[in-house]
Amino acid sequence: MASILKFFLPKDRVFYTLFESASGNLEKIARKLVMVVNEPDYNKRAVIIKEMEDLEHQNDLLTHTIFLELGKNFITPFDREDIHSLATALDDIADYIYAAGKKINFYKIDPTVDSGIQKTADAIEQAVLAVNQAVIELRNLKNTQKIVECVIKINSIENSADDLFDLSIEKLFDSDVDAKELIKKREIYQVMETVTDKCEDAGNVIESIVVKYA
Amino acid sequence: MASILKFFLPKDRVFYTLFESASGNLEKIARKLVMVVNEPDYNKRAVIIKEMEDLEHQNDLLTHTIFLELGKNFITPFDREDIHSLATALDDIADYIYAAGKKINFYKIDPTVDSGIQKTADAIEQAVLAVNQAVIELRNLKNTQKIVECVIKINSIENSADDLFDLSIEKLFDSDVDAKELIKKREIYQVMETVTDKCEDAGNVIESIVVKYA
Amino acid sequence: MASILKFFLPKDRVFYTLFESASGNLEKIARKLVMVVNEPDYNKRAVIIKEMEDLEHQNDLLTHTIFLELGKNFITPFDREDIHSLATALDDIADYIYAAGKKINFYKIDPTVDSGIQKTADAIEQAVLAVNQAVIELRNLKNTQKIVECVIKINSIENSADDLFDLSIEKLFDSDVDAKELIKKREIYQVMETVTDKCEDAGNVIESIVVKYA
Repeated sequence: MASILKFFLPKDRVFYTLFESASGNLEKIARKLVMVVNEPDYNKRAVIIKEMEDLEHQNDLLTHTIFLELGKNFITPFDREDIHSLATALDDIADYIYAAGKKINFYKIDPTVDSGIQKTADAIEQAVLAVNQAVIELRNLKNTQKIVECVIKINSIENSADDLFDLSIEKLFDSDVDAKELIKKREIYQVMETVTDKCEDAGNVIESIVVKYA
Repeated sequence: MASILKFFLPKDRVFYTLFESASGNLEKIARKLVMVVNEPDYNKRAVIIKEMEDLEHQNDLLTHTIFLELGKNFITPFDREDIHSLATALDDIADYIYAAGKKINFYKIDPTVDSGIQKTADAIEQAVLAVNQAVIELRNLKNTQKIVECVIKINSIENSADDLFDLSIEKLFDSDVDAKELIKKREIYQVMETVTDKCEDAGNVIESIVVKYA
Repeated sequence: MASILKFFLPKDRVFYTLFESASGNLEKIARKLVMVVNEPDYNKRAVIIKEMEDLEHQNDLLTHTIFLELGKNFITPFDREDIHSLATALDDIADYIYAAGKKINFYKIDPTVDSGIQKTADAIEQAVLAVNQAVIELRNLKNTQKIVECVIKINSIENSADDLFDLSIEKLFDSDVDAKELIKKREIYQVMETVTDKCEDAGNVIESIVVKYA
């Protein structure tokens, strides 16, 4: 059924489908990150992180496909450079979520005893859900209200993640953790907080597209 | 008087007024940050930081109003995406100045004994003055010389802030401060240095507008 | 000979020449950084770092010249804001490579005993070579295949630099280095890793130009 519909779709609709695949994939990677931070066993975490790597590769392929389609299509639903910016922004989110998972095992951190890491993972999942929702709404550029709500939500989550970062660092300082452990954990907090920055960047790109075409 | 004038102004002039309100507001927040770093009392600092938060919220509202105006106006003084980029860049500056103030009390740092923090706050105020000047000059896009001078000044201040960052870290290393204190202070230096990066970003957006329309 | 050719060149060709000077200069600065990290003597390093500063100033002048030419030329080989973005991106790379060299002596790090620093310097040189190649290929925007290969190479080097960063930090943790030394070295790793981020940014700008005009 979907394929029959596709047959009749204007060719430039392929970009919406590709963007939705990429942002839908982000939801999957973010969910895996939440699993990672709730899994006390190093080896079981390693299995999930491997799955995150596979999903991240899928996003690389989707980004590549979007660029190939740009080369083949003269007509695009919005400016070519905006398509490029959005694809890059979504790809960045995938990169940093995977990096967060990878660093947790690399630095041999137990995430299950750190509520800051767990809350930030939840915030990342929420931010990615809002990004995905905004991407889906791009098909209806005239209904900007919903997109604007998504962008406001992403920005609000990014603010919370900033506060979680400060709280987590402060909590570490009040504990008797040594400086090396502190630096490792700061590294994890930092990369996780950067995920929400990258979601905000994607939100900005989407908002910029709305501003231009709506 | 102002409202009478506004009645006769071309509608797209509203953007200049909104941008000037936002960049003028940045001056106020930056001045509050200078007050914070010169105030030895934690509770008195807390009062000023609360005022910074209010000013930061005002900038959020101004940014929101700019986006609403974009939705209502077909004619804009420069490209819609440039208006979006500039509004976002000014908003980022406000966010990071407020974050710098907030982190000082959050990490319970005494800024009055740290000349690096004080000099960087002064640098931030200078950078913000140059940003505001450049925004004001946007009304006369044909007189690019003054805007270019502002942008050069912003970039030069950003370079100085980088050096201040390195000097401050080095000074900490030569002191007998413990590693945790060092990490806290580095966090403050970092966010303050990022303010000047964000001023440079705003300068780049303005320069890019000049390059396009002048 | 070159000057005779130039006489007959369309005026907008001046931008290609300026960009190639800037990206060619990046190769020189990157090579100096490789020399710095292989030089055990502080004072000899200081001499090379001074040469890096001179090269960085040359890039500042080239960037300034590009902006001046934008003011003088009505016809440009691609959009004025893309020329601005590319010039800014190349300038950022020069700034961060120089900052990496400067910080090594500033923090009195011996880079010759740190294979992470040495490998990252090599990665930076490779990334800059790919940036330069991509800039050269801009003259033939219809032959996008080579540019795309360069951009893929830059992104792949940036990924390796991320891994080198994590490995270097992990190695430090396993050593008996004290926390202050650790923080200094992290600062060096960080700024070096940022160089490859800035190369990726330049690659993104170039890719975005290709997507628009090819």
